[in-house]
Amino acid sequence: MLNRRFAILAFVFLSSFCLGPMALAQADPLPSWNDGAAKSAITEFVARVTAEGGSDYIVPAERIAVFDNDGTLWSEQPLYFQFAFAMDRVKAIAPDHPEWKDAEPFRSILAGDVEGALASGKKGMAEIMAVTHAGMTTDEFASSVRDWMATARHPKFDRPYNELVYQPMVELLAYLRANGFKTFIVSGGGVEFMRPWVEDTYGVPPEQVVGTSGVVSYVLDGDKPVLQKEAKIEFVDDGPGKPVGINRFIGRRPVFAAGNSDGDLQMLQWTTLNDGPRFALIVHHTDGEREFAYDRESHVGKLDKALDEAPSRGWTVVDMKSDWKVVYPTAKQ
Amino acid sequence: MLNRRFAILAFVFLSSFCLGPMALAQADPLPSWNDGAAKSAITEFVARVTAEGGSDYIVPAERIAVFDNDGTLWSEQPLYFQFAFAMDRVKAIAPDHPEWKDAEPFRSILAGDVEGALASGKKGMAEIMAVTHAGMTTDEFASSVRDWMATARHPKFDRPYNELVYQPMVELLAYLRANGFKTFIVSGGGVEFMRPWVEDTYGVPPEQVVGTSGVVSYVLDGDKPVLQKEAKIEFVDDGPGKPVGINRFIGRRPVFAAGNSDGDLQMLQWTTLNDGPRFALIVHHTDGEREFAYDRESHVGKLDKALDEAPSRGWTVVDMKSDWKVVYPTAKQ
Repeated sequence: MLNRRFAILAFVFLSSFCLGPMALAQADPLPSWNDGAAKSAITEFVARVTAEGGSDYIVPAERIAVFDNDGTLWSEQPLYFQFAFAMDRVKAIAPDHPEWKDAEPFRSILAGDVEGALASGKKGMAEIMAVTHAGMTTDEFASSVRDWMATARHPKFDRPYNELVYQPMVELLAYLRANGFKTFIVSGGGVEFMRPWVEDTYGVPPEQVVGTSGVVSYVLDGDKPVLQKEAKIEFVDDGPGKPVGINRFIGRRPVFAAGNSDGDLQMLQWTTLNDGPRFALIVHHTDGEREFAYDRESHVGKLDKALDEAPSRGWTVVDMKSDWKVVYPTAKQ
Repeated sequence: MLNRRFAILAFVFLSSFCLGPMALAQADPLPSWNDGAAKSAITEFVARVTAEGGSDYIVPAERIAVFDNDGTLWSEQPLYFQFAFAMDRVKAIAPDHPEWKDAEPFRSILAGDVEGALASGKKGMAEIMAVTHAGMTTDEFASSVRDWMATARHPKFDRPYNELVYQPMVELLAYLRANGFKTFIVSGGGVEFMRPWVEDTYGVPPEQVVGTSGVVSYVLDGDKPVLQKEAKIEFVDDGPGKPVGINRFIGRRPVFAAGNSDGDLQMLQWTTLNDGPRFALIVHHTDGEREFAYDRESHVGKLDKALDEAPSRGWTVVDMKSDWKVVYPTAKQ
C-alpha cells in the first residue's frame, strides 16, 4: 500500500514531469517579437494547424518548416559571412603561398582591399573558393570553419559571426519545434560551412541542413577513409534550386517557409501554392541602425520580386525595425 | 487537498504513462532473431553505447544508423524490385505507345521476356528508365509507385513487394530507434521510388532516405508549381557514392551500418574505420528455401570483397538461414 504523503508527492513530481511542457506553453514563446500583425499571424497559424480535430490540422510528420539562412537567420552584410570566412582563410594560409603576393585576387585580399578582390570577377571568386574550400578533407574543412568562428569578428559589430543571429528567428525556430515542427535550413550558403555550428546556434542538427555543395570523393588511405573536397560545385541551392533541394534532401513539401530575398522566391511559392494551410514569411531589412537597411537595390540579399509578390500570395512581411524588440541576442560575457 | 484514492490512482496512471517504455524494454526487442552471436553482438553494442557514464557512451545526437535497402531491408531477387516496377510500368502505359510493339527493349518487356529486355544493355535500360521515371512531375511519379505497390505481386511469393521486407531487420530498425538512434536508408535505389512507401513499411520518414536521384527542375505553371523529372541521373548512391551520399544528406558519420553487398563496402568502412565504438552488419543470403541463396557470383547484390573484409574489420555477418526465425512478416489478411 502506498504511503499517502509519498503518493501525493509522487503525483506532483510526475505531473510536473509529464505535464511540464503544457504548463510552460502559457509563457510568451516569442518574447523578442513586438505585438503586431506579424507575430499574430505566426501564432494564429501555429494554433490553427496544431488544433487536433480542427479543419486545418496538420499531422506532426508533415509539419516541415524551412528557413533560409543568410539574411533570414543571421546577417549577410556588408558581405556574405561565408565570403568573409574565405577571405580570412586566404590571410591565414598566405604564409604557405608566397606567390600570392603578386597574384590577384590574393594580393588585394592580403592588402585588405575587398573591392579589389571582388573586381577579379567570377574567375577570381572561383580561385578564392578553390583554395579555401577544396583540396582538403571534409574534417579539415570543418575544423577551419570552427577555428574561424571562434576567432573572427564582424567589422561593424565586433562580435563573433555566430552571435549575429536574429534572436526573434531563433525563438521562432524553437517555438515551431515545441509545436511539433521539424525545422530545416535551406540556404544558398555552403552546407559544409553551416553544419559545424548550426546545431549549437539554432538547434538545427546537421542532417536538417540543405545547402550548396561541392563534389567530394571517397578515398581509403590504408585503414583511414576520408572524403576529399574537390574544387567543383555540384549543386547550387538558390532560387529554383531551393524547391529542388527541398525535394532532394527532405522529400516532403514544407508547410512553413521563411526567407528574405529573391533567392527564396521559388521556395516560398513551392511552400504556399499548395492545398491546405501554409505560411510564408519574409524578413524585410528595414533597420539601418540596429542592423542594415536594404532591399531592391542591394547586391547582397536583393529583395524585389518576392516583395512584389508577397501581398497577393498572403506572405507575411516582417518589418525588422517595428516587429522586432531586439535584433541580436545579448552579447556573451 | 488531494483525495487520497485519486492521488494513488493518478500516481499509477502517470507512472505507467511516464515509465511505460522502461517497463516494455524487458520484452525481447528482437523476437524474430534466433539467439546467437549476431543477435548478441547487436544487443551488446546497443547496451554499451547507451549506458550513460560508460566509456563507450554515445550521445543520442550522434546515434546515426544507416541501412542499405535492396537485399538488406527487403529482397532483391530475381531482379531489383525497382526494375520490376519499371517493366510493369512499361506494360501499363504501353497502350499510349503503339510504336513499342516493334522496338526493343519494349517489345521484349511486352512479351514478358525479361532476358530479352536485359539484352538491350545500358542503352535499353536508359530508355526504360526514361519512359518510366522521367517526363512527369515528382507527384505523378510518386502516384505511379503507390499504384504499383498496391497491385503488383512478386513472381515467387505472390505477395505485394512491400511485404517482402525482412521482419528481423524491421525489428532491428525499431529497436535502434527505441534506443535513441536515428535510422536512415542509404540505398543504390532511387530516392523517389522509396519515399512513397518506406515510412509505412520501415518507420523511416522520407527526409531520412538517401538514394540515387535524377535531375528535377522547378516549373511554375500559373499558380501551380511542379517539379519535373528529367531523364538524367545526377547522383549514384552506390559503392564509394554511399559515404559521399551520407556526407551530403546526413552530414554526420554513422556509428551503425547494415548492408549486404559490395555496393555497401565503402559505407561499412566509412562507418567503422573511425574512433569509438562502431557496428557493421552484413546480411548474408544463405536461405534458398525461405528466400534466395546467393553471394559471390550473383549479378544482383554481389557479395564478395565485403565478405572477405568482414572478419578483419570485425563486421557481424548475419546468416539468414540460422540467425533468423522468420524472413518475412506474416501475410496481411
